[in-house]
Amino acid sequence: MKKGITAFLPLFIGWVASAQAQNEDSLLIRAIANDILTHGTAYENLRQLTKGIGGRLSGSPQAARAVQWGARLMKELGADTVYLQECQVPHWVRGAKEEARIISGRRDFIPPLHACALGNSVGTGTKGITAPVVEVHSFEELEQLGKKKVKGRIVFYNYPFNQTFIKTFYGYDDAVRFRVQGPSRAARLGAVGVVIRSVSTAYDQNPHTGTTHYEEGLPKIPAIALSTMDADLLSKRLQQDPGAQLYFKTHCRMLPDVRSYNVIGEIRGSEHPEEIITVGGHLDSWDLAEGAHDDGTGCVQSMEILRVFKALGIRPRRSFRAVLFMNEENGLRGGRKYAEIAQQRNEKHLLAIETDAGGFTPRGFSMDMPAEKKQKILAWKALFLPYGVYDFSETGSGADIGLLKPLGTALMELSPDSQRYFDYHHTPVDNFEKVNKRELELGAINLAAMVYLVSKYGL
Amino acid sequence: MKKGITAFLPLFIGWVASAQAQNEDSLLIRAIANDILTHGTAYENLRQLTKGIGGRLSGSPQAARAVQWGARLMKELGADTVYLQECQVPHWVRGAKEEARIISGRRDFIPPLHACALGNSVGTGTKGITAPVVEVHSFEELEQLGKKKVKGRIVFYNYPFNQTFIKTFYGYDDAVRFRVQGPSRAARLGAVGVVIRSVSTAYDQNPHTGTTHYEEGLPKIPAIALSTMDADLLSKRLQQDPGAQLYFKTHCRMLPDVRSYNVIGEIRGSEHPEEIITVGGHLDSWDLAEGAHDDGTGCVQSMEILRVFKALGIRPRRSFRAVLFMNEENGLRGGRKYAEIAQQRNEKHLLAIETDAGGFTPRGFSMDMPAEKKQKILAWKALFLPYGVYDFSETGSGADIGLLKPLGTALMELSPDSQRYFDYHHTPVDNFEKVNKRELELGAINLAAMVYLVSKYGL
Repeated sequence: MKKGITAFLPLFIGWVASAQAQNEDSLLIRAIANDILTHGTAYENLRQLTKGIGGRLSGSPQAARAVQWGARLMKELGADTVYLQECQVPHWVRGAKEEARIISGRRDFIPPLHACALGNSVGTGTKGITAPVVEVHSFEELEQLGKKKVKGRIVFYNYPFNQTFIKTFYGYDDAVRFRVQGPSRAARLGAVGVVIRSVSTAYDQNPHTGTTHYEEGLPKIPAIALSTMDADLLSKRLQQDPGAQLYFKTHCRMLPDVRSYNVIGEIRGSEHPEEIITVGGHLDSWDLAEGAHDDGTGCVQSMEILRVFKALGIRPRRSFRAVLFMNEENGLRGGRKYAEIAQQRNEKHLLAIETDAGGFTPRGFSMDMPAEKKQKILAWKALFLPYGVYDFSETGSGADIGLLKPLGTALMELSPDSQRYFDYHHTPVDNFEKVNKRELELGAINLAAMVYLVSKYGL
Repeated sequence: MKKGITAFLPLFIGWVASAQAQNEDSLLIRAIANDILTHGTAYENLRQLTKGIGGRLSGSPQAARAVQWGARLMKELGADTVYLQECQVPHWVRGAKEEARIISGRRDFIPPLHACALGNSVGTGTKGITAPVVEVHSFEELEQLGKKKVKGRIVFYNYPFNQTFIKTFYGYDDAVRFRVQGPSRAARLGAVGVVIRSVSTAYDQNPHTGTTHYEEGLPKIPAIALSTMDADLLSKRLQQDPGAQLYFKTHCRMLPDVRSYNVIGEIRGSEHPEEIITVGGHLDSWDLAEGAHDDGTGCVQSMEILRVFKALGIRPRRSFRAVLFMNEENGLRGGRKYAEIAQQRNEKHLLAIETDAGGFTPRGFSMDMPAEKKQKILAWKALFLPYGVYDFSETGSGADIGLLKPLGTALMELSPDSQRYFDYHHTPVDNFEKVNKRELELGAINLAAMVYLVSKYGL
């Protein structure tokens, strides 16, 4: 018996030490939460970014102002070092408001459609496009129609968002291929334009923009999104009058690349300054939106970690960087540049966390890292539970940090509740009013806690 | 060895049977979810209730219309039996819009304050009240001031919402005592009126109404709530000018009781019809609000269970009742009546679930029942996790069903995410626009799943 107890003693001591450490960590995280919930500035910072600067597509004057704003704010919030990381970004401009109308032989009045050009798309020219419409619900259906029935027409991808996914990002991934690949796949068959049903969970009159991608060697044809209600209107009219045509006019064009920047604020680690933990969101947004949930919230949450560490006198053992990435929306040039420089300088990036899924109430973290690192993080689960985070089941991470993976960096993304995100995404209603202060702050709390734990224990 | 295996065989078979049953249940719940997310009518029903009928305080014409609406809808949705349960309810009316102003010797302009009368409170009379103000932050502070410093004055309870609770209902419970007990505790010391800082997580200009309670034998003094911003304005002015007075005028009064109703829709159980499972929300709301999250969402979620059971051909083994309770806000007469009749008829109420914490994304269920019943429910945890419900840690339940407890009924409440609830609670911004369709539906899915499981397996 005695031997038995002695054999277990080190385990027991280990358990006591671990319990004590968890208790200390629990108290520290409670202090982080209390400070953010009572003295946090993320919400006011978001107000400045969304209401003061507004939509800030890469290359725009607003994006340039946002860079200056972010750098100044990071200094105020207590970063040791703040610097800009230069990158060349695409400069797409929408121009004047788009027009779209159904032209039908029937005499009844059809109101103009709620439409917007897809990001990166070419314009129609001043006369616009007028052509018969062929409606499809899948690429297979399009291919079956073939060149004969597609040539000279506008292809209408009327694919509804699959609402049965509980996490709406799965529904987005499922539907967004029509926005991204749709124009080139239609152009290959001779289509003259593309119109898509907005990739949206809402049933309303807001068209959703977002990037499209033209395949090399195929004609670049103009492409727009319709509001979900107007997609139904168009579909119904085509049933009533198959000869109905669609007219639309867009003024967008791609200008030469522009110089822009990632904004980086760093707190140097006290024990292992060479080991870097990054938390970032993207500073650019679509021009139509204020870019609140996408991704002003990610930016101000990342910076809030700087603030709360300073306020509580937390000096992390490993270096922490808040990063505002440029050009996530239509090029990812900022994310590429960040990884490129990390590789050139042979930096040791321990962990990178993206927060680009909205400023909603947090539910979890996704993890893209080897199993033994996952286990280390899962051992901390109980520390996050009081702050609403319980779901570590997802495996992806964010676009901006993805290119750090070849450097052996563990990747994560904050997973907020996703029910509302695609109601607002890439529309004018992605605005400050749609963000709840406490939900935003809870995200920052969980991010700060994760940085604190990894900076203390490594990974 | 052989013996060992044989000994475990029944356990093994039991495990296989249980795993198979869970798989069947999981598929059935998936079918419920798919149907609600694609064909649900809860959101449209909520639009009718909030936009079509609007605020519906007990005794109002709107409350009477809501009763008729609920009964008609329950029939349409597929209840076997729909009936009204009569109860007498208080009839408090607000009258004309309240006025409140700071009267200060200083010459600068002070805008009128954003104020509303507390529910059930008496009016000021046509001249209003004008008196010096004494600001306190606790009942202890009030008692210490004593009669000498309180008499003839207006007591200003300026207690801020404690934002550090992660679940905001704890902050509400902490702060709401000033609204409920404040007037009588001030009247005991001779105060002539009461003004409270709104019980709110938001910092804005919406005053929050809600019930107050006059203690027997003490003078009933008028009481109002100020918006959180205006509570700060008043506090600041009192510091600058301690002689400043407050003027306010309210027109509210209590009229004689009115006849009203709970609305009940039942699906008779196929095997144990005598065992009843209730899911309910309350049909009444404050007059100032559309009563969307409080508690139109609970009503339409309860009724959505009727719809989805019929749509999928689910005949529950035990009887299911959707109940729209009357008068939760300022009297609880509907809840009392429901329990009273249950007792009179010696009904066997197995389980009652309230949904009155907002139509936000669900996170859990609270449970108020003996440990062995909790264990039975916790064995189903994995079935709820895919639909966002993981938290079974809370022990309370809802006001309307609380009086079933003496009958041995197991009680639960749906626990949605609580971050936004007290931004809107009892104000005009508790409106339809603040409800997200998918979040509302996810609540209905989890409620329907719980009813399905308990109706199948008992409790």
